[in-house]
Amino acid sequence: MRALVFNAAFDVTVEEVPDPEIQASTDAVVRVVATCVCGSDLWYYRGVSDRRPGSRIGHEFVGVVEAVGTDVGTVAVGDFVIAPFMYSDGTCPHCLHGVPSSCLHGGFWGTHGNDGGQGEFVRVPLADGTLVVVPGGRPDAALIPHLLALSDVCGTGHHAAVGAGVGPGMTVAVVGDGAVGLSGVLAARRLGAERIIALSRNPARQAVATEFGATDLVEARGPDAVGAVLELTGGVGADATLECVGTGEAMNTAFAIARPGSRVGFVGVPHEVVFPIGIAFDNNVGLGGGLAPVRAYLPELLADVLDGSIEPGRVFDLEVAFDDLPEGYAAMDQRLAIKAMARLA
Amino acid sequence: MRALVFNAAFDVTVEEVPDPEIQASTDAVVRVVATCVCGSDLWYYRGVSDRRPGSRIGHEFVGVVEAVGTDVGTVAVGDFVIAPFMYSDGTCPHCLHGVPSSCLHGGFWGTHGNDGGQGEFVRVPLADGTLVVVPGGRPDAALIPHLLALSDVCGTGHHAAVGAGVGPGMTVAVVGDGAVGLSGVLAARRLGAERIIALSRNPARQAVATEFGATDLVEARGPDAVGAVLELTGGVGADATLECVGTGEAMNTAFAIARPGSRVGFVGVPHEVVFPIGIAFDNNVGLGGGLAPVRAYLPELLADVLDGSIEPGRVFDLEVAFDDLPEGYAAMDQRLAIKAMARLA
Repeated sequence: MRALVFNAAFDVTVEEVPDPEIQASTDAVVRVVATCVCGSDLWYYRGVSDRRPGSRIGHEFVGVVEAVGTDVGTVAVGDFVIAPFMYSDGTCPHCLHGVPSSCLHGGFWGTHGNDGGQGEFVRVPLADGTLVVVPGGRPDAALIPHLLALSDVCGTGHHAAVGAGVGPGMTVAVVGDGAVGLSGVLAARRLGAERIIALSRNPARQAVATEFGATDLVEARGPDAVGAVLELTGGVGADATLECVGTGEAMNTAFAIARPGSRVGFVGVPHEVVFPIGIAFDNNVGLGGGLAPVRAYLPELLADVLDGSIEPGRVFDLEVAFDDLPEGYAAMDQRLAIKAMARLA
Repeated sequence: MRALVFNAAFDVTVEEVPDPEIQASTDAVVRVVATCVCGSDLWYYRGVSDRRPGSRIGHEFVGVVEAVGTDVGTVAVGDFVIAPFMYSDGTCPHCLHGVPSSCLHGGFWGTHGNDGGQGEFVRVPLADGTLVVVPGGRPDAALIPHLLALSDVCGTGHHAAVGAGVGPGMTVAVVGDGAVGLSGVLAARRLGAERIIALSRNPARQAVATEFGATDLVEARGPDAVGAVLELTGGVGADATLECVGTGEAMNTAFAIARPGSRVGFVGVPHEVVFPIGIAFDNNVGLGGGLAPVRAYLPELLADVLDGSIEPGRVFDLEVAFDDLPEGYAAMDQRLAIKAMARLA
């Protein structure tokens, strides 16, 4: 089969790799129908974080179950499924506490002999705990992007909002206008926020933010952004703040605009973040979030996609052929696209 | 009047200072009945943090109202009152959000011309927002330590427990066996924790921890303490973790023993803490707490003291004459006492 492979910074290619097979009785093999590129993929794409040359990549996909091991009970051949960005057993103490991202037996796609999500097929370990079946068989083509977004970005934005403690009537600020930040706007609206301040300077992203529920746009960065948000909130700060970037500047901005006694929800992989512990202490601004336990949120978010309440796939503004997915990386790296997807089957 | 003054590291003395007077119509003057030394006083006492020589010190006191300004409405001359460790107006946006420690018009005792709490009298700014009246007039002498503990340490331990999200049935770990850590144990029990693991190597402190509700004692520190707590929790970690020290080692220990998806409540003034953001992200361990908004908790904690449900003053294991309060500092510095108090009137 064909799958994307990381060679070096700014160099990912489609290569022929072995077809996956059932290895354990709890495995399934999924024929990928759609996959996409994540903002977090850019860390290694840009050479900021290390990745082994030759490793398989991608961690977001939806598809059709092709085969299941003898111990798989909740998914069957022919089911249309969503895979969260990590696999997990659903039965360990951490999964039972709602944190499948810390599953004792879970792991990441594209590591330790696991297929990446950017390929024609993926062997899925712990299929019962991992995959979520979309009822009704293969969905319309128009629904696929929204289902694919549930694989990571929608649930990650939701996790930022949950981590920040978003609730009805609140004023929420969102730092970061990538696909996760935009999904955070959507999540804040879904959780009842009354006012949503999105920090964005990019017209295309501003448009999606507004469509997702942003009521105010702040085009500044750093101290100017802090001043603008404080002015919008009468000097008080935001009731909940989503940090969806992962840089030190974004974290500092988030803590500076958070109302004393509120929380910052963070979901951006932290890179060279010097945590502003002094502000956190003085202002009683808490920190929530982390590596999003997307699997735990999938059922409730899927229900909202299926009934049309949310359209999280609006973050995809570039669709390419699978063989052109490397161009999707390049477009995202250059900020020419918010998020790129490809359909395969 | 006489009041404690900071001269230099390891040098605090009782000095004659001017009697306070009403300056603003919202002031009260309180005759101090009892005051005490805080673990946070040790930071400047030991020269770890800077403090202006000649400054007044102490931020915990209870007493009787001697005079009130013309605009004071909720406290009257003769009332027995508890002062939280900061003053606040009770009406600004942050006070209304339950964070009087961020009051727009509030401040600390012993700074900017304010009296310290360790003196015979204290001028209290914003008396209506700050002071809490103990109903029934002057209480029995035996009750005074428990009321004095509400000035800071009891509410601060409670804030750590709230910040950590302690709830019924949980397994809670408490890092730090100072008066705040012990108060955190008490708070965790009060909030319904089923199992409370206290990290302490000191027999006197262990005894108070056990009396306050600790079910398990861990005598190790650092990595050994982490191993012990993980072993006690079946490898899962604590459902809620209280960090009551403020050092980097304590913060790292707290995050290492926190169950994925749980929270660390911190109330120790952070000193040279390199925040473990990687663990926080990977394990979804949140951070709550900060400078305790003690005033907000006073009514509910006072009710529990008055009905005998809690006896937070058990943290005082040294009572000295007011003139001997410098010896209280020395005893706490040398860890010969958990917490020292003095009665004045």
